[in-house]
Amino acid sequence: MKNLLFVIVLFVGTLSFAQQYDSLFIRKIYDKALSENPAYENLRYLCKNIGQRISGSAAAQQAVEWSLRLMDSYGFDKAYLQPVMVPYWKRGTKEEGWYKTASGEIFKVNMLALGGSVGTNGTLEGDVVEFKTLESLKNASKAQVENKIVFVNEPMNAKNINTFESYDEGFAVRAFSALAAGKLGALAVVIRSVGLPIDDHPHTGAMYYNDSVKKIPAAALSTRDAENLSALLKKQKVKFIMRMDCQDMGMVPSFNVIAEIKGSVAPNKIITVGGHIDSWDTGEGAHDDGAGLMHSLEALSILKSLGYKPKHTLRVVFFMNEENGNNGGKSYAKLAKENNEEHIAAVESDAGGFVPRGFHCDGAVEKVNFLKSLAPIFKPYELHVFEKGYGGVDINPLKQQFESIALFGFIPDSQRYFDVHHSPNDVFENINKRELELGCAAMASLLYLIDLNF
Amino acid sequence: MKNLLFVIVLFVGTLSFAQQYDSLFIRKIYDKALSENPAYENLRYLCKNIGQRISGSAAAQQAVEWSLRLMDSYGFDKAYLQPVMVPYWKRGTKEEGWYKTASGEIFKVNMLALGGSVGTNGTLEGDVVEFKTLESLKNASKAQVENKIVFVNEPMNAKNINTFESYDEGFAVRAFSALAAGKLGALAVVIRSVGLPIDDHPHTGAMYYNDSVKKIPAAALSTRDAENLSALLKKQKVKFIMRMDCQDMGMVPSFNVIAEIKGSVAPNKIITVGGHIDSWDTGEGAHDDGAGLMHSLEALSILKSLGYKPKHTLRVVFFMNEENGNNGGKSYAKLAKENNEEHIAAVESDAGGFVPRGFHCDGAVEKVNFLKSLAPIFKPYELHVFEKGYGGVDINPLKQQFESIALFGFIPDSQRYFDVHHSPNDVFENINKRELELGCAAMASLLYLIDLNF
Repeated sequence: MKNLLFVIVLFVGTLSFAQQYDSLFIRKIYDKALSENPAYENLRYLCKNIGQRISGSAAAQQAVEWSLRLMDSYGFDKAYLQPVMVPYWKRGTKEEGWYKTASGEIFKVNMLALGGSVGTNGTLEGDVVEFKTLESLKNASKAQVENKIVFVNEPMNAKNINTFESYDEGFAVRAFSALAAGKLGALAVVIRSVGLPIDDHPHTGAMYYNDSVKKIPAAALSTRDAENLSALLKKQKVKFIMRMDCQDMGMVPSFNVIAEIKGSVAPNKIITVGGHIDSWDTGEGAHDDGAGLMHSLEALSILKSLGYKPKHTLRVVFFMNEENGNNGGKSYAKLAKENNEEHIAAVESDAGGFVPRGFHCDGAVEKVNFLKSLAPIFKPYELHVFEKGYGGVDINPLKQQFESIALFGFIPDSQRYFDVHHSPNDVFENINKRELELGCAAMASLLYLIDLNF
Repeated sequence: MKNLLFVIVLFVGTLSFAQQYDSLFIRKIYDKALSENPAYENLRYLCKNIGQRISGSAAAQQAVEWSLRLMDSYGFDKAYLQPVMVPYWKRGTKEEGWYKTASGEIFKVNMLALGGSVGTNGTLEGDVVEFKTLESLKNASKAQVENKIVFVNEPMNAKNINTFESYDEGFAVRAFSALAAGKLGALAVVIRSVGLPIDDHPHTGAMYYNDSVKKIPAAALSTRDAENLSALLKKQKVKFIMRMDCQDMGMVPSFNVIAEIKGSVAPNKIITVGGHIDSWDTGEGAHDDGAGLMHSLEALSILKSLGYKPKHTLRVVFFMNEENGNNGGKSYAKLAKENNEEHIAAVESDAGGFVPRGFHCDGAVEKVNFLKSLAPIFKPYELHVFEKGYGGVDINPLKQQFESIALFGFIPDSQRYFDVHHSPNDVFENINKRELELGCAAMASLLYLIDLNF
């Protein structure tokens, strides 16, 4: 330890605020969410009877139809589909990877093609060259990389408290390794999964090409396979063998799924709450973002069941295609403008179904201050994060269309998210009922407070 | 909703405090805990290679011996055993329960004898009489209950945000139903488990007799079995059949396991940090309280590995017998007094290995204010609960011996605790590595802040 001793004197100045609310009503929201709440069973259905649902797939269409029926059954003022064109990337059926030692021993790995990757067009085999970071790959020479299979073994940073900071740091490895390796003439690239634990679940997710660089196949290994491969490479030359028959199927029609309660005072002023209905094509999209759908739907439903008559129109949206294009979010914002709607706020839940910690606000200073002023109201419910921050991918395009809109992002605890994110491990069994229900209550309460005070 | 609108104006007055600390050192504690931390693997060993370890059992003795070796291996100034006599209650091998319908159909239930219960002395069969609450059982007549098997089907309250409040409310059902039913001449009592989810894991735990009332067998059914039995009782008479050969084996010798780093300024002033080494004899004692042991041990170990020289003596204690007697805690406090030690503070972790929320303090106003003053220091680490409250069962007896001691209780998130508490579900698989590690860091940081400022 440094033997410096700091003496801190803190003065928490006058923080004053005034807003309207009924604390008993918020208690009723929580009571309802914790005792009579179909969110958990609805999410079970979505995960177990429909399952993974990448944009454009038959399962995504089933999820759309089921969601519309579900919203219809809630008796909101209306429930409808909003057409949107989405890319359809299809993982093949022959996706496998192995590494081969100098003596010819072959080990199968847990591998997933990254979303958007081209296939291998048969079986690909090449010498492995390892880079510890994306940065070092970018600085490599053509001679080091050409005709090899590049292995980018950059671990997620475990030291950040909020794991989303580590994701922001590590995301580029997944997104841009194919581009960096392709420039230098690599045959393919395999990355260490962007996930925190050492386990056997590879994590997929979006990656990007550009038209001036040859498109090479890109896949993620489980963190354990990455560790094993790296250990072997310290001792000997290793070859990697892979085949993937994933392909781009072009643009196909799909839908956002929407329901609303009409505003009693200003029906043309709209508050949107939502999550995304598509998921990656592995696991069941339980935390990402089935939980966000249930949070959003029950936020509206709980207010309705308690007889609340909103001033503004409250609209729940299950956005399509957040994972690989955000066409649902973009279409929604564009149509809202074309239809002369006035969007004053939007709330998104897309960080998992874990225990609520608070909300972020992306908006003008007075909107951020409004959010901060809610801290004492939410203290009995164990929420404590009320800060300026990002709203969410799906609602973000609304900013371009509605200058004075305030966007709010739901912040659940982040510790377990990158155990499951985009992996076969994102299944219903990893959802905790109470944690999910508390998310519904937090979302309903914020929606109520926004409606009352905006 | 009530159409009342409250206008709240809050003035957060001057809150001033001064304490010594090095924020970089706390960051180092967290870095260490999140990157080089044997807690998770040590807990795996305890859970998988030793397992459940009720006081007096061979497994409890194995846990003691393993813990001493582990503490020895850390190179603290000393590590030793402290003898303590403990009760040994032994679950038998023939523990089963069934209910029988009017037409003679038999259904096996998931059942666990409550800790301390007498056996059934063969097979017991009787008509079931259901009570919805312990209170209604207490108010029942002898005619309703005599020679029957009483079924107390009182659910845990799901509406509290902090689940420990529900446990405080529901604990009496487990503790005192046998006494209430015994007074009225019941043959036996079965309770609905004190657990929140509807599932198949019965939850055991301590129950109490008194010498003036006949001791009757007491067991817990899984919540799902309780729901099913109750549904059946709405339609028809039901008999319950049970056998349990648990028995009281009397008092046997055991140990607290202790290690310490000697204080550099005031070695006779002691700060204790601990959890309990015994567990109920089901599951693996992973959250209750294997996690607390690892938190406490690593709190000391992290400080040592960072080269911190404490002013006071820092002592980690693995207390024996918290679950059914607290003889470890009582002995420790008594011996401390007899040995003329001066105990200034104690910290306990016995609420699970979940993500940290903060700490409670049981002590004089200035100690509680000290704790409250730590909130800004812990804010970057997502801790936000710094309040007056209970310290912990093991450290509580220190209060009787040392008037001015301050007791601190570690407060992890409570949402999942009563999914696993005292049940076959309290296993290593339900521990999250990062959550456990963050607990170690929070405990080490508090220990450092206490040592520096007390």
